[in-house]
Amino acid sequence: MSRNLVQIIKIGGNVIDNPAFLERFLNGFAAIDTPKILVHGGGKLASRLCEQLQIPVVMHEGRRITDKPTLDVAVMVYAGLVNKQITALLQAKGTQALGVSGADVNLIYSQKRPAKPIDFGFVGDVKTVNTAMLQFFLAQKIVPICCAITHDGAGNLLNTNADTIANELAVAVSQFAPTQLVYCFEKEGVLADAQDDNSVIKTITPTIFEQHKQSGVISGGMIPKLENAFEALRRGVKQVRIMSAEALAQANLEAGTLISNE
Amino acid sequence: MSRNLVQIIKIGGNVIDNPAFLERFLNGFAAIDTPKILVHGGGKLASRLCEQLQIPVVMHEGRRITDKPTLDVAVMVYAGLVNKQITALLQAKGTQALGVSGADVNLIYSQKRPAKPIDFGFVGDVKTVNTAMLQFFLAQKIVPICCAITHDGAGNLLNTNADTIANELAVAVSQFAPTQLVYCFEKEGVLADAQDDNSVIKTITPTIFEQHKQSGVISGGMIPKLENAFEALRRGVKQVRIMSAEALAQANLEAGTLISNE
Repeated sequence: MSRNLVQIIKIGGNVIDNPAFLERFLNGFAAIDTPKILVHGGGKLASRLCEQLQIPVVMHEGRRITDKPTLDVAVMVYAGLVNKQITALLQAKGTQALGVSGADVNLIYSQKRPAKPIDFGFVGDVKTVNTAMLQFFLAQKIVPICCAITHDGAGNLLNTNADTIANELAVAVSQFAPTQLVYCFEKEGVLADAQDDNSVIKTITPTIFEQHKQSGVISGGMIPKLENAFEALRRGVKQVRIMSAEALAQANLEAGTLISNE
Repeated sequence: MSRNLVQIIKIGGNVIDNPAFLERFLNGFAAIDTPKILVHGGGKLASRLCEQLQIPVVMHEGRRITDKPTLDVAVMVYAGLVNKQITALLQAKGTQALGVSGADVNLIYSQKRPAKPIDFGFVGDVKTVNTAMLQFFLAQKIVPICCAITHDGAGNLLNTNADTIANELAVAVSQFAPTQLVYCFEKEGVLADAQDDNSVIKTITPTIFEQHKQSGVISGGMIPKLENAFEALRRGVKQVRIMSAEALAQANLEAGTLISNE
């Protein structure tokens, strides 16, 4: 079932920060034979480079504020080093990878987040996706590798949440093809018991989500993640999965937790 | 005449290191209404970042050796910061820019330069260009913005001379469309008198080149530059120009020195 869908796959630091695992992950990704898009964040590299360059970290309620030097580092690491390394590795595996930011072919247009109540700096909220170009790339068997940098159409680059980018790309692709959005993370899926990796909840529907929220089985950071997943479904994405990057390294597109309206 | 040709335009540090001029230059570039490609190096930013990160500079006969930390900086600056800033600025001017390295869609495949007699490190010599993909992008009115990073098809990125990349892209495009290769630099063109900016030699044919070499009018670094230009002509490029970036900022494609077989 999942194998007939366009795959929008999002990876985070647990893949990017581990070169040996990244290599293995990309073997799995390269083996997926449907049209596909990879969305990546930057991992710890950007923070490490900020440290080396003595760019002070300014946080607000656990979220980093992106001043201009921090933005430049994010662009260098996400759109430069990480994006091109992934692209070169995938090319070596026979995948026609094309590394992009949101500025390239105006793929993701965003607006700088309003400075009030909190000025997060050069952070963009996604407004539109160039759906025609995405369709065109996928039809040519080009595999977009998309980093978490967008642009405001006025010449400015903006740091943007990678989960949001994955969501918006999946919604855009859903306009022309049925799509599965896959969040890869370090756990096997959404767990009924956080201490037990074997307690993966196979399917979460809106009803099950409500039950698990009320009983406390699902809590904390998983709630907004699942809310995002349901929002993607409402906006036309066929199905969403939350699974381990390890499963995807084995080209398994049906592992983890399926989030579905049905 | 020049206006009917696909334009492959190469810029260097004098444009990239000056944000106000870069902006003006890109206005001129955006105004060119033929299919076009921009090739850029990295300017002084990469050296400055190496300094800040205390990566020692190792030179051989005036040429930098690219060790792994230096390569990472080149990828971050060329393929990341510079490439994406240019792309975002051009998007703001209505140009459908797509920032790429040679790894993206396997655009430029190169081989690591042999370690003997001198090991220059992670430096690539261009072997093939993905001509079909270039043709396909240009037909879609996509404007490739190409940085001086290539890949070896085995997952490794390689630092590559930007002039060479411009040459190779122009030769590739010439297989499907007549092409002008433009080297932008700080002078008005090839000068008969290095002290006199008004002494631009309008046209250089192989015969004129030989005469000027013998008389000493053309000497030093301009000789290999012109040899590269003639090589591009031999390999099918319609014409080559050496002109000031300032002329191109005014969308003038017929300024400077024309290098031609005729």
